[in-house]
Amino acid sequence: MSYFRNEIDEMQGYTPGEQPRDRRYIKLNTNENPYPPSPNVASLIKNFDSETLRLYPDPVFCELRKKIASLFCLAENEILVGNGSDDILTMAVRSFAGPGRKIASFTPSYSLYSVLSKIQGAQYEEIPLDAQNGFSLPANFAEKVADAALLFVCRPNAPTGNCFPLGAMDRLCDACRGIVLIDEAYADFADDNCIGFPRRHRNAIVMKTLSKSYSLAGLRLGFSIASAEIIAGMMKVKDSYNVSTLAQRIAVAALDDRRYFDETVSKIRRTRSKLIASLRGKGFKVFDSQSNFVFASPPDGDAAGLYRRLKSEGVLVRHFPGASTGAYIRITVGTDIETDSLLNLL
Amino acid sequence: MSYFRNEIDEMQGYTPGEQPRDRRYIKLNTNENPYPPSPNVASLIKNFDSETLRLYPDPVFCELRKKIASLFCLAENEILVGNGSDDILTMAVRSFAGPGRKIASFTPSYSLYSVLSKIQGAQYEEIPLDAQNGFSLPANFAEKVADAALLFVCRPNAPTGNCFPLGAMDRLCDACRGIVLIDEAYADFADDNCIGFPRRHRNAIVMKTLSKSYSLAGLRLGFSIASAEIIAGMMKVKDSYNVSTLAQRIAVAALDDRRYFDETVSKIRRTRSKLIASLRGKGFKVFDSQSNFVFASPPDGDAAGLYRRLKSEGVLVRHFPGASTGAYIRITVGTDIETDSLLNLL
Repeated sequence: MSYFRNEIDEMQGYTPGEQPRDRRYIKLNTNENPYPPSPNVASLIKNFDSETLRLYPDPVFCELRKKIASLFCLAENEILVGNGSDDILTMAVRSFAGPGRKIASFTPSYSLYSVLSKIQGAQYEEIPLDAQNGFSLPANFAEKVADAALLFVCRPNAPTGNCFPLGAMDRLCDACRGIVLIDEAYADFADDNCIGFPRRHRNAIVMKTLSKSYSLAGLRLGFSIASAEIIAGMMKVKDSYNVSTLAQRIAVAALDDRRYFDETVSKIRRTRSKLIASLRGKGFKVFDSQSNFVFASPPDGDAAGLYRRLKSEGVLVRHFPGASTGAYIRITVGTDIETDSLLNLL
Repeated sequence: MSYFRNEIDEMQGYTPGEQPRDRRYIKLNTNENPYPPSPNVASLIKNFDSETLRLYPDPVFCELRKKIASLFCLAENEILVGNGSDDILTMAVRSFAGPGRKIASFTPSYSLYSVLSKIQGAQYEEIPLDAQNGFSLPANFAEKVADAALLFVCRPNAPTGNCFPLGAMDRLCDACRGIVLIDEAYADFADDNCIGFPRRHRNAIVMKTLSKSYSLAGLRLGFSIASAEIIAGMMKVKDSYNVSTLAQRIAVAALDDRRYFDETVSKIRRTRSKLIASLRGKGFKVFDSQSNFVFASPPDGDAAGLYRRLKSEGVLVRHFPGASTGAYIRITVGTDIETDSLLNLL
């Protein structure tokens, strides 16, 4: 006899990207930022008084919420902070979905959405993107999302890298009777974003992370923006002390350094353009990308073989088996030197 | 119309202890450790290379699990690490309980257990402790816990500070058909513990935290010990990257410093004895405590009034209104100086 709920026994856990320790790789597989975090972070850590760790952290993140609010011209009660944005996804699933309350997301997308749905025992519907049209929204998307209690939309989408048009995002929010959670993990690398959506759609939540554009994947810091009413409800669901004192302070320091952020994002966008052009020059089919990775299909279509060959040469990229994604590899945009090493191998 | 599940709309969130910022208090209300964390922690932070935060943390905590395994003579796959032990309580509720799968706990105890049950939509049964007999287990405890899918037992119990006898703990594990999660947040201050239980009870999980005895409440680091089978199932439920790189490294550094840990715990136990004796000398009814706090009822029984008077004098303690707890205040064991300040006021 198992002690676990059936849903847990029957499911597989989420599979994170490889973090191998057997040798040094050029690591272009988990969309980490190739540049270090802001020097503000190093200096904050160096001068951090460890005795403050004796006390519980601020459960409502006053200083950090103030900083985020001022950056995005929001009120503090429109902001929720999580132990990484995965923590916020978990809160959302527990707040809005469950047996009889359906979760929907497009596919391919971030595979954690389906794992979290299974854990919660919610019905889960995958709505296929139009793979023939650059993984755009399917024609009937509005009717498909109508009855979801919680719709996850990753924008820019992973692993495809494209952004659905802002007008279509508005129509998604209008069409869905439940919450639309717009996962903007990669939006700092895009030309536009949905940060204004919660002010004009009562059901919109926008989620951001410091993992990618702020180079702080190891810190675990995500936040979401929504109406004060939605944030207040989600606060009841979060673990009381879900973000450590160190993480709150480091996040403030990182968010403070606008110049470093702008420079880093610009560098990655420049390298992305070069990478896409070079891959196309080598006969790859490559989608335009609005994120810090590129989704590319090799000329012979053997993406799995290419993934393996690159790994044996010391370059890690990611391959997602499956009908719509199996012909592609996802390449994180690294430094120019890392990108050149990859291109030389191809 | 609300977007939230009914359970969320209808519930109140957990109320953490006060963290006031209006003035400096002698803070004896949230069971924080009065001493700083080990000097190892300060030195690790000072020398921490912030660039490592660029990469995701180890999702399976190899180094930290190795350290915990060696401390407690366990295998690494018998250990799970959480973002504070609240994170592990949340994982347990999501793994084992839900509609049709009951959660039980004794009362009074840690009030988060009932909040988590409500969020999960599980039936929740509170089993009253015997308040007339020092908050000991009620006579019929074995039959009461039989049908729980998940039983929370806080040992030493909070806010009462007592330990249920080890023999009774064995009988609880035998009697319960589900998981028995033994919350040992305070066990490092006690004379004994249940660390050996998972090896002799298939359904036992023992949970520990670095918040109290290691003086790291601000870090958020808890861990649990159970059979490899139970740990593997709970790993599917946890957020993939639930513990930051910094938290993992700091935890290893803190756990490594046995001498500092032993000294700190001894000091707190000594101060606890003095505090209990002095309170009894002043006519308080005080239970023996196995934790880093003391549960005490003033001679006139007006605990709420005493809490308010102490607060106005700059000393924070905690008062839990309610039939069984309302006549008591819970006092965290501080430094000798803090304790003397409190005693002088009484």
